[in-house]
Amino acid sequence: MTQLMTRLTVAGVGLVGGSLALAVREAGLAGEVVGFGRSAGNLDVARDRGLVDRVTRDPADAVRGADVVVLATPVGAFAALAEAFRPHARPGTILTDVGSVKTEVVVALESRWRGIGPVVGGHPIAGSEASGAGAARADLFRERRCILTPTASTDAAALARVRALWEAVGASVEEMPPAAHDELLARVSHLPHVLAYALVHAVADVRVGGRQILDYAGSGFRDTTRIAASPAEVWRDIALANADALRAALAEFRLSLDRLERLIAAGDRVGLETMLASARSARERVGRDDE
Amino acid sequence: MTQLMTRLTVAGVGLVGGSLALAVREAGLAGEVVGFGRSAGNLDVARDRGLVDRVTRDPADAVRGADVVVLATPVGAFAALAEAFRPHARPGTILTDVGSVKTEVVVALESRWRGIGPVVGGHPIAGSEASGAGAARADLFRERRCILTPTASTDAAALARVRALWEAVGASVEEMPPAAHDELLARVSHLPHVLAYALVHAVADVRVGGRQILDYAGSGFRDTTRIAASPAEVWRDIALANADALRAALAEFRLSLDRLERLIAAGDRVGLETMLASARSARERVGRDDE
Repeated sequence: MTQLMTRLTVAGVGLVGGSLALAVREAGLAGEVVGFGRSAGNLDVARDRGLVDRVTRDPADAVRGADVVVLATPVGAFAALAEAFRPHARPGTILTDVGSVKTEVVVALESRWRGIGPVVGGHPIAGSEASGAGAARADLFRERRCILTPTASTDAAALARVRALWEAVGASVEEMPPAAHDELLARVSHLPHVLAYALVHAVADVRVGGRQILDYAGSGFRDTTRIAASPAEVWRDIALANADALRAALAEFRLSLDRLERLIAAGDRVGLETMLASARSARERVGRDDE
Repeated sequence: MTQLMTRLTVAGVGLVGGSLALAVREAGLAGEVVGFGRSAGNLDVARDRGLVDRVTRDPADAVRGADVVVLATPVGAFAALAEAFRPHARPGTILTDVGSVKTEVVVALESRWRGIGPVVGGHPIAGSEASGAGAARADLFRERRCILTPTASTDAAALARVRALWEAVGASVEEMPPAAHDELLARVSHLPHVLAYALVHAVADVRVGGRQILDYAGSGFRDTTRIAASPAEVWRDIALANADALRAALAEFRLSLDRLERLIAAGDRVGLETMLASARSARERVGRDDE
């Protein structure tokens, strides 16, 4: 594999950042991969597992000489990270990210990286409720989608380099405007997370005749709420950064839920079966997860 | 293993009924296992896979000489099945079931089986979105809970026999009143199913800039909506038969969802993280599915 970068800095070596770092190292895509983070414990795991060549908690040390910097922390930390890296970045350094929200993020990064180098918004649709450097794996992005969200001011050469990076780690890259990304992800990811958290919250402390509800959870409940085991900080940031699209998706969900409940309340066997069958048939189009 | 029954009749040899039949056969718990159903195609699969000793679509042929009859069709068909079996059952035949709703079912069966034999309500908490005889497996109930729901009129000896049957196929049996069962299952199973169906329904036909939302589903969406691939007829019947408890659970869910949405709308970082973290911590108590 051709080397694509001299030095790649990954800020946040958790599941996604750590997996990208490892995939880049294994494929020899960068001369050096530097891991930056705030938690010494997680950085130790990243170094010990060989996800990165070296780790640092110092912003200057992290970005010195880097030609590409990838932000992979919770999205709420991106703007402050760009501020912290800015004085130490060399001209032309590409700033990109893996955040699940793009509109607000890309605006924030473009403004903070102005005069330094190009910004390319990115989001690999990969991951799970697992977190931390211990969960990273080199094949996380293989045959997964990675969405890049160029804007009017995105540098074409930088976009091509970031695309090449994701393709080199196995992802299938697609470009779309940040707002389209956020509307899609609000429905296919952010809404399901909010519902899963709300479901667990609603039933967690209910007791029936002294019995703890969660003791009776079967595989259906486990699957439906698996993503509620995701880190709270990550999903707090995503929900807040994509609040408008998420609330629009919530309104759509409530319409469907209201309709289902009306059919149940009315005892409408035919209407209820029709609606459930139509959802089932749509669900079958999603296919099976290949994990 | 001691033989527990001379002849077991399983009405509905799908995932749950077929798995029970197979487990009983493999353990030699019955002299004969008869599969009854309405679909010749599914009965052929059940016979060809050896889930049962023989199959029939004739109610008289199905229950003649049976000492235990298990109803394992969608719950909406139970009352009519009991009616159809009643003229052909010998005195003392135990009628039991595997339905996910108990209050309405047990009342209906006790009234229709009066003068014939004892009724024991049952519900193994096992299964998946898979359906049909082709999905049946002998170990489906191993280390799973099976809830039995005796009433004031339940015969103690019949209850003990049904308990022995479930324990012999590997389940851990627990007894509780039908209403307690329905309140528990409304929250841990029926509510998640309704939410999953509503979620798929809400997003299935949304397009963003010409893109089909479901094409962007990742593993989170797949997990959260897996149970929306369950048979519509099964869940229509469960939702209608447990409508009161399900609607109470829906009201609790809406309170949690409203609270989450208010925190998002208010941009309350601390409140939102606290609520998500509390749900995450509750979800971790559920543990991992052992499948």
